Amino acid sequence: MQQTTYGIRIEVPLDYEAAIARIGEALQAEGFGVLTSIDVKQTLKQKLDRDFRRYVILGACNPKLADRAFQSELEIGLLLPCNVIVYESGPQRSVIAAMDPLAALGIVGENEALYGIAREADERLRRALEAVEKV
Amino acid sequence: MQQTTYGIRIEVPLDYEAAIARIGEALQAEGFGVLTSIDVKQTLKQKLDRDFRRYVILGACNPKLADRAFQSELEIGLLLPCNVIVYESGPQRSVIAAMDPLAALGIVGENEALYGIAREADERLRRALEAVEKV
Repeated sequence: MQQTTYGIRIEVPLDYEAAIARIGEALQAEGFGVLTSIDVKQTLKQKLDRDFRRYVILGACNPKLADRAFQSELEIGLLLPCNVIVYESGPQRSVIAAMDPLAALGIVGENEALYGIAREADERLRRALEAVEKV
Repeated sequence: MQQTTYGIRIEVPLDYEAAIARIGEALQAEGFGVLTSIDVKQTLKQKLDRDFRRYVILGACNPKLADRAFQSELEIGLLLPCNVIVYESGPQRSVIAAMDPLAALGIVGENEALYGIAREADERLRRALEAVEKV
């Protein structure tokens, strides 16, 4: 697993559709449901007639963590859900990356309770990516 | 309009549904479509049987700006779309807030092209909120 400035990422020997299915299952095992899904390729084609690689932005939400976050900071919805992206990086190869909740939180400022929630979200997202990487 | 550490916000004398409709129109006038919508109240009720105020997280996307952002940084999908939240703050009163793209970008690190795109997104989101505030 690779740490980028604002996310964690893996590259796996799975085709795009399989990678999406696999990360969905791994997120579910960590308590995250996928609430939204934006097909970037399709959106750019429809709106701008622009060709792009297959690429999806998933909005993953762990309801228990989200509930605690809302109790702690009402406007935290501006930073939710946790984005997870999947895109094709070659034949039978895909990249899966997740937003680093601790990096996102860096912009919220001091909030001790939120920090604990972001750390737990971060641990869960890492475990989900590790589970996909291992298979 | 109020600047918070990671967003811009207005409070308007509109009920929740009217506020959602009004900001949708104002975003559209600035080239943003609403690609996703998460009903926070309904989600917390369904998943945790928790009562919460009416609250929605809209995912707003300006395809031209998004296209430029993807060309400049492939993994920018981790920070897209631009979140806009609407929640009820009293009888016939609602808060509308938008993610500050420049704050979000602070965590990406040095990328001159992205900075220009974030600045344009920021200006457009401000105009959208101003348009709702004026009515």
